[in-house]
Amino acid sequence: MLKSAERPVEQLLELMGHKGVFTILRSLQNGPLRFGVLQQLTNLPPRTLSLRLKELEELRLISRTEYNEVPPRVDYALTERGRGLEPALEALAAWEEKSLR
Amino acid sequence: MLKSAERPVEQLLELMGHKGVFTILRSLQNGPLRFGVLQQLTNLPPRTLSLRLKELEELRLISRTEYNEVPPRVDYALTERGRGLEPALEALAAWEEKSLR
Repeated sequence: MLKSAERPVEQLLELMGHKGVFTILRSLQNGPLRFGVLQQLTNLPPRTLSLRLKELEELRLISRTEYNEVPPRVDYALTERGRGLEPALEALAAWEEKSLR
Repeated sequence: MLKSAERPVEQLLELMGHKGVFTILRSLQNGPLRFGVLQQLTNLPPRTLSLRLKELEELRLISRTEYNEVPPRVDYALTERGRGLEPALEALAAWEEKSLR
């Protein structure tokens, strides 16, 4: 459960401070992804990944869609609020690239 | 001490995940500030604030300058690497504003 920080940006940054969350958001910029793919991209243990995904859902940054198929399929995608983070994600990625030079 | 995350952006985000760090960086965008002013702006207890400032120095995002005066004066300022974060800080602030509407 997320601590109830006063400001939305502090709540967001508290979550983004956890390993793998930046990678989840960046990866979802390219479109919806399944749990298994997110696990490969983040290298997070399944329980940690599902906790982070729940927290991202709680902040309404991502949505979780279940498809009634056999076997059942679940997709995670950025919400509109999540898409609103894209300029910040791009700027953070650019900062990282510059600081690696 | 900061956990040694692999990627610079994860190390940065881990630090920015702590209460008050975003406010420190945003405030220093307007120019150097003293400890006392940063404490008023962040409402952080002194020991927590000095820990966060040390961690920001460790990541070379801020500099600490001591002036040989009576009483001694210490200023904190964004480094060039810290200035490089400004687009991300602006984008995060804009995201917060939009999500408060």
